[in-house]
Amino acid sequence: MVDRKRIVVIGGSAAGPKAAAKARRMDEHAEVVIFQKDADLSMASCGYPYYVGGYFDDRNMLLSTPAGIVRDPKFYLNAKAIDARTLTEVTSIDRKGHTVSYRHLATGETGSMGYDKLIIATGATPKMPPIPGVNLKGITTLQSMKDADFLRKVRDEGLIKKAVIVGGGLIGIETCEALQLAGIDITVIELLPQLLTFLDWDLAKLVENHVRSKNANVITGNGIAEFLGENGTLTGVKLSNGTELPCELAVVAIGVSPNVKLAKEAGLAIGVTGGIEVNEYMQTSDPDIYACGDCVETVHRITGKKVLAPYGDLANLQGRVAGENAVLGNTVTFPGTIQTGICKVFDYSAGSTGLSETAARKNGYEDIVTVMNASTDKPNYMGGELLITKLVCERSTGKILGAQCIGPGNVAKQIAQWAMAIQAGMHVEDIVNADLPYAPPFSLAIDHCIATAHLMQNKLKGRLKGISPTEVRKKLDGKDRPFFLDARGPDEYEQTRLGIGETLIPLGALRKRLNELPQDKNKEIICYCKISLRGYEAALVLEANGWTNVKVMEGGIVAWPYAKEK
Amino acid sequence: MVDRKRIVVIGGSAAGPKAAAKARRMDEHAEVVIFQKDADLSMASCGYPYYVGGYFDDRNMLLSTPAGIVRDPKFYLNAKAIDARTLTEVTSIDRKGHTVSYRHLATGETGSMGYDKLIIATGATPKMPPIPGVNLKGITTLQSMKDADFLRKVRDEGLIKKAVIVGGGLIGIETCEALQLAGIDITVIELLPQLLTFLDWDLAKLVENHVRSKNANVITGNGIAEFLGENGTLTGVKLSNGTELPCELAVVAIGVSPNVKLAKEAGLAIGVTGGIEVNEYMQTSDPDIYACGDCVETVHRITGKKVLAPYGDLANLQGRVAGENAVLGNTVTFPGTIQTGICKVFDYSAGSTGLSETAARKNGYEDIVTVMNASTDKPNYMGGELLITKLVCERSTGKILGAQCIGPGNVAKQIAQWAMAIQAGMHVEDIVNADLPYAPPFSLAIDHCIATAHLMQNKLKGRLKGISPTEVRKKLDGKDRPFFLDARGPDEYEQTRLGIGETLIPLGALRKRLNELPQDKNKEIICYCKISLRGYEAALVLEANGWTNVKVMEGGIVAWPYAKEK
Repeated sequence: MVDRKRIVVIGGSAAGPKAAAKARRMDEHAEVVIFQKDADLSMASCGYPYYVGGYFDDRNMLLSTPAGIVRDPKFYLNAKAIDARTLTEVTSIDRKGHTVSYRHLATGETGSMGYDKLIIATGATPKMPPIPGVNLKGITTLQSMKDADFLRKVRDEGLIKKAVIVGGGLIGIETCEALQLAGIDITVIELLPQLLTFLDWDLAKLVENHVRSKNANVITGNGIAEFLGENGTLTGVKLSNGTELPCELAVVAIGVSPNVKLAKEAGLAIGVTGGIEVNEYMQTSDPDIYACGDCVETVHRITGKKVLAPYGDLANLQGRVAGENAVLGNTVTFPGTIQTGICKVFDYSAGSTGLSETAARKNGYEDIVTVMNASTDKPNYMGGELLITKLVCERSTGKILGAQCIGPGNVAKQIAQWAMAIQAGMHVEDIVNADLPYAPPFSLAIDHCIATAHLMQNKLKGRLKGISPTEVRKKLDGKDRPFFLDARGPDEYEQTRLGIGETLIPLGALRKRLNELPQDKNKEIICYCKISLRGYEAALVLEANGWTNVKVMEGGIVAWPYAKEK
Repeated sequence: MVDRKRIVVIGGSAAGPKAAAKARRMDEHAEVVIFQKDADLSMASCGYPYYVGGYFDDRNMLLSTPAGIVRDPKFYLNAKAIDARTLTEVTSIDRKGHTVSYRHLATGETGSMGYDKLIIATGATPKMPPIPGVNLKGITTLQSMKDADFLRKVRDEGLIKKAVIVGGGLIGIETCEALQLAGIDITVIELLPQLLTFLDWDLAKLVENHVRSKNANVITGNGIAEFLGENGTLTGVKLSNGTELPCELAVVAIGVSPNVKLAKEAGLAIGVTGGIEVNEYMQTSDPDIYACGDCVETVHRITGKKVLAPYGDLANLQGRVAGENAVLGNTVTFPGTIQTGICKVFDYSAGSTGLSETAARKNGYEDIVTVMNASTDKPNYMGGELLITKLVCERSTGKILGAQCIGPGNVAKQIAQWAMAIQAGMHVEDIVNADLPYAPPFSLAIDHCIATAHLMQNKLKGRLKGISPTEVRKKLDGKDRPFFLDARGPDEYEQTRLGIGETLIPLGALRKRLNELPQDKNKEIICYCKISLRGYEAALVLEANGWTNVKVMEGGIVAWPYAKEK
């Protein structure tokens, strides 16, 4: 290689093409080559569930630029002067010789190509459970264009009546919605006790209730023991507990493993998580080789630990960094992830950023406080929709560690706000008087996230003694049941109520009816209302009148994930 | 006053009731009194335009708690043990005697009441132009429940055919939409050269184009000289340039003045802006008197200067601070504003946070860089809608000073993200790899705000030599016109084009057609496309091939606020 630098990119999905394009922009005269195993390039793979679900019909929209041009090899050559070779697999990397060997998958033709800098963006492969029947016809994942084409055909043909989704994570839930929209009877099967493990159990359970309300079945805490079939075709699944469910289709979505075979065989360092090890420049253990996207591990910006974060947005950002550094030398850095994620779940959205309570405890954070808040996203008169947020903070400092939000309201905006706050290292005190865009079509006068910060502030100051619905539920089984005070109005009580032995005293009557409260001023009293604003005020009234053990059930009735009397 | 502290609040709109409620929560045994001049309490005044426009029909929704209870004196008494006295005006404050005098507006009855701590939340009054005819029947503002009732009646009766809105600010534009929805022929008249002065001219002009597309007329750079009438009733308006416009209704929305008469007469310090001076505790120059809401001035968190910021969200937050400090002593602070605002404009939203370019320059910031970015808010296949953002940064540090965003897309989320970033003191480098909630129903893989940061980063590094559409327009009148390169495809060019003497060379053909570019390598060349992504890539190709004076028109054709050939 004389004066024209050659950048070779392995992988043509998200990170690879982004790295190649950035490399081109950084050096118009470099030679840039992409090797892509699949037939398509630069697929919007996060869009597959929506194509399957019928949100749009033109497959090419998944492959097009904003201007509507399909990103095929011709496009890459003309618009970006990038040599993109599809159906071509890189079979090995010779680091010493600065060469990759490749094979054309259709013709079998092989060859090798030298590189100045190599960028590995080999992505990840869906995990498959190591159980009998896994190769039956009718079992698929939703990870490739081919998978998407297959499931879209299932939708369009309308022949399949029953399907199971194995795995209740992001992809599983998105696929559940897509197939339910196709009129298929769905059961989601999740080995763990909850769906969407980026949420804590209490919020995940509320999401699960919503999924069930859409006539999709959910089985948690139970795995698949066997795929059942006849003549090589799937006819059902057998669960670990022996239950058999007939089905003609199974979509497996139990996570992905980084594709590190090439890197490993080339002797590159593989991290503890199983992803390719890279430094902040997205550089591997070989200075001439960068890596980006689902095949690498990255740093969790809060815990400092290495994690896998196979998200489409990060792949693009990492690709951009790798592409620039491959051309210019190490100039830009990628700071890592706070594992921000979001998922549409029928009429709900569910999102998380930073650490959940579970993740925080798992990572050794003991000194944390959580709070739940429920409110609409904008005023009722503008058609406000419910949001339920759980915030996790460090007790000693008030530093925000994580936030989760679910509901039919504008969850994305809430999570975006918290994600910015967490990345900036903000504390609760920085949010309580935040100046955010308020007008009735967009938010409450005190935005849901600010109100959440107010609750956290009250909790940190010891004013709000909150208790989660989960903890309340546990108390129902105990011997000494607390006194439950529902502070709503009689009309609301008639419409819906928990039925946990509560006493209804509307907040507006409470001060006159204190005689109906327990005589024992040390008796545990738990107050709530629909969203526990009135519950909080009721608790303050009781405390001011001498009761010493008064708590507020956070989030109120709308955050109660269990069965209700009414 | 022996042991029961008495907190007196003057004003019952937003800040007052919030302060009173917070005071109550901080001390169940305090006596809390609100004096409210109007008949209603705690009105959601930002919701008036939507009531007028028919988004909802029940007036009480503007006055209700989330649980649907009207916030009348009975509610305040029962639910909050607050003595709220409506139709009662405080006529003077005796600071020495710690007493206020009041008058009941219906009965004329007067009285006085002592206070331990006083909270002034007297709000603001709409400005009226000092011109002939201002008292004619048919001229109104939209600031009170009475105004809202009047305009709603106008809507419901359907008798009025023509109206003018005097003032093209937030309220003016919201009212424009409301009355247009009522089927009234509207003209917005703005003295300044643009609508919505929280935006820079270029974005404001795009909003103006959208307003016009909804059959509402807009006249800028022209004021009202006279209201014309017959028999005491409005028949038209005369503009400063002599034009007469017939109309039966005029809504004046040229801003508000803080109500400081009481405070001034009591000898409290009034700030340079005309608002009541308060410290960070919302405390006036009298330690026993706090003030909050539209009647006070507050600190601009970026410039450090005192400003008026009459926004409903800040009123609530300030009220909360004043209420707590009035009871507990100075314990919590209000940090000020970054003047975040947002406004629905028919199918567009328009928002701003921090400093616009105009505001930055007015405040002495010379060393700034701006960039414009246009993209959809989510992928096209999910029905993405356009966003156009203008970002303002400090050149030397990359610190984010302000962001404006307009368009049919999810503007509120963009502004919320930037508002958090600005309040956290974030720099462009902190945004370029932000981990935000991505899934196709919610955002692009690289969110619009991150892409905006990428453009800013490229500009700060000298890679993107941007030029705004406004600057390009100026060059059209000059002698030595630049060479304009439209990098889109022929189909797009057929659909819409600027017609400024541009040459169409699709990006995909550019490298083969360099001979069609000016021979003079120092000739100024301005590249663009629909949103100027391809324009940017075209510029890089030209620079790499020796052209030395190549610029990119930021935002592309969608951000061009002037007439187009097609």
